[in-house]
Amino acid sequence: MAEGNDRPRVVIVGAGFGGLACAQALGAAPVRVTVVDRHNYHLFQPLLYQVATAALSPADIAEPIRRILHRHRNIDVRMAEVTGVDTAGRAVRLADGARLPYDRLVIATGSVYSYFGHEAEWERHAPGLKTIENAREIRARLLQAFEAAEVCDDAAERDRLLTTVVIGGGPTGVEMAGSVAELARYTLSRDFRRIDPTKARILLVEAAPRILGTFPDDLGAYAERALRDKGVQVMTGAMVERIEADGVVVGGRKIPAATMVWGAGVKASPAARWLGVEPAKGGRIAVEADLSVPGLPGVYALGDTAQALGADGAPLPGLAQVAKQQGEHLGAGLARELAGGAPVGPFRFRNRGNTAIVGRNAAVFDFGRRRLKGRLAWLLWAIVHVWLLVNFEKRLMVTVQWLWRWLTYQRGARLITREPPDAERP
Amino acid sequence: MAEGNDRPRVVIVGAGFGGLACAQALGAAPVRVTVVDRHNYHLFQPLLYQVATAALSPADIAEPIRRILHRHRNIDVRMAEVTGVDTAGRAVRLADGARLPYDRLVIATGSVYSYFGHEAEWERHAPGLKTIENAREIRARLLQAFEAAEVCDDAAERDRLLTTVVIGGGPTGVEMAGSVAELARYTLSRDFRRIDPTKARILLVEAAPRILGTFPDDLGAYAERALRDKGVQVMTGAMVERIEADGVVVGGRKIPAATMVWGAGVKASPAARWLGVEPAKGGRIAVEADLSVPGLPGVYALGDTAQALGADGAPLPGLAQVAKQQGEHLGAGLARELAGGAPVGPFRFRNRGNTAIVGRNAAVFDFGRRRLKGRLAWLLWAIVHVWLLVNFEKRLMVTVQWLWRWLTYQRGARLITREPPDAERP
Repeated sequence: MAEGNDRPRVVIVGAGFGGLACAQALGAAPVRVTVVDRHNYHLFQPLLYQVATAALSPADIAEPIRRILHRHRNIDVRMAEVTGVDTAGRAVRLADGARLPYDRLVIATGSVYSYFGHEAEWERHAPGLKTIENAREIRARLLQAFEAAEVCDDAAERDRLLTTVVIGGGPTGVEMAGSVAELARYTLSRDFRRIDPTKARILLVEAAPRILGTFPDDLGAYAERALRDKGVQVMTGAMVERIEADGVVVGGRKIPAATMVWGAGVKASPAARWLGVEPAKGGRIAVEADLSVPGLPGVYALGDTAQALGADGAPLPGLAQVAKQQGEHLGAGLARELAGGAPVGPFRFRNRGNTAIVGRNAAVFDFGRRRLKGRLAWLLWAIVHVWLLVNFEKRLMVTVQWLWRWLTYQRGARLITREPPDAERP
Repeated sequence: MAEGNDRPRVVIVGAGFGGLACAQALGAAPVRVTVVDRHNYHLFQPLLYQVATAALSPADIAEPIRRILHRHRNIDVRMAEVTGVDTAGRAVRLADGARLPYDRLVIATGSVYSYFGHEAEWERHAPGLKTIENAREIRARLLQAFEAAEVCDDAAERDRLLTTVVIGGGPTGVEMAGSVAELARYTLSRDFRRIDPTKARILLVEAAPRILGTFPDDLGAYAERALRDKGVQVMTGAMVERIEADGVVVGGRKIPAATMVWGAGVKASPAARWLGVEPAKGGRIAVEADLSVPGLPGVYALGDTAQALGADGAPLPGLAQVAKQQGEHLGAGLARELAGGAPVGPFRFRNRGNTAIVGRNAAVFDFGRRRLKGRLAWLLWAIVHVWLLVNFEKRLMVTVQWLWRWLTYQRGARLITREPPDAERP
């Protein structure tokens, strides 16, 4: 039982970067905290593409939320699905019928992929990359496509099987396309007898005139060159019109493909609906400078599910560092406020630098005034990502695997462990 | 395309210990080899219980068959389901309609769990431990049961949720029960607020008068003591009469339980049916001393799916080392025979020692005349199992994780990544 039954109750929904940082900042405060998440683990999403491309195992980037927070005896962790919020009665409703009363509520439920209204038709053909299940499914489709191509006697069908289309030229799409290209070119190159995996076709499709639109021009141009060097065909200004079981229609032309991955747009989790507030752009919950939700006392939102404005008046980007800083700020602010001190102050984002990796020896960093690209950026990317992992064990495991991969070009998790439904098989 | 289209064709069905060893022994021979397996990976089954108990990731004990064999340019790997064998036409039939012609056929398809005729009712409640999917499912049930117990207000139901029943006191059952006990006692001990995981009940149920029946008496007695020390309740001479969704009926008494694992009996894969031969005990294919199937020229069987007799006239046990030695023997023999030399000679099993692990500091080894138990056996067990892994990367990864676990008592793969079907949820 959490200590101090008379202490104020803080409920945090979502144990991503934002929710976890908020909980940790409340770990020593005289409050009772409950962290609710539908999974039992915190997922380090920036490396999920490496699970999807057989380089890491799910457990390398996921740690039980209980374990991360177990030292804080005032924090309770609950694996449950939230179905709504009773804002009048100040309680969170769970799928199992339970109610979690709160004095302060923090919504940190992140985002899901948006298919621009085509969820029902497109998602099953081109999954996004948000969950471990997504990553495992994409990995299975990718590897299964090479297996099927190896025994396929029809040249056109074989070409289709060896074609991967990544939709969306943001960081996730770039990382995914670069990693699939290296998988085909290096890791699989000598393992087949009939097909030549290095001839696999990887397309990156972006509707805007250039990829990495949130980065400066020169970094986007560098990433495009680096992708082409790795054998990725980059199509910019190309709008996806339809996604079907056997390929993608782009600019009126069908591109036959077996593996399709979506990274083109996100929208907020449905938390705005729980609160009964009018969602802002992308389904987000508009919040005040102190991250509170207007009109709902004691309710806060942060990270991808919130629309907070930066110093320049523009909405803050949907980045892990934004969520994390907001969580730290809100947790510390609530700790102070609930101990009788000053209320939560306005949040100010400090840009730690934006990054994307193309692959071996190629990444970009944008620090605002300074920029970095190439081998040094790649090394920095690796160091930063190892360092950001949740504990020493994960850092050790990921470092060992990256060193091994760097030396051998091999990847340790080439497992097809889930049969896609019949209709979806490449 | 495999080299030498006029060379004799060897088809090996199954890439377990036996099939893989056979393929590797044929890697330099003037033959064309096709290895068929329904999975794309070779699985190191002896450590599967560690995946089921959150200690290792699937990728730590599974490696793509293509990768293992890629240096042998005369070997083709095919991921496919075998549906039958045309012994008259000398071809293996695949589910996709293809036929693989052979001059020599090696059946190495292993075994599946036998529920003594209750497969339909019992298997879904108490899965066995043969596949990665099994292990992930058991891991999810185990961890989910603790999560459910944490929020359960009913004392009897909470006790049920915290009860794990392992059925079968062979090596797999002993390993599983010991590992679950250590998971509860050490790894989870401080992560919950309402329940005390160290109070979880783990039962090992064995129908025979003692556990580890294939080991000498004193080693069985030692293992039983070691299990009790770890908090496992060992029930010998106890016959499971029924397995239901919410528990097990043993000796007329219902034991309410949330997680049930089956390790009580195996039977051969259905390969005898493919060949149209009368199966021997446990569905096995009776083979001659040279591992050939009587009456079917050019057809061989080995490992768990074959019934081969030892020097003492008794059937050889279903052990990895038997399969592996048979594979090596048959592969070398076929290489010689097909190059125009002497035919495959009789197989002779050399016992390398039989082992089972109870947990930290406790294992048993039976080398025939010599025996070993306790801490030294445990250390030897760990060294032998790391050494037997398929390549340096796996050895490195498993060693790092075991050292980490040994130092911290933590386990790195506590993920609930698959929702069990509603009816099955603890």
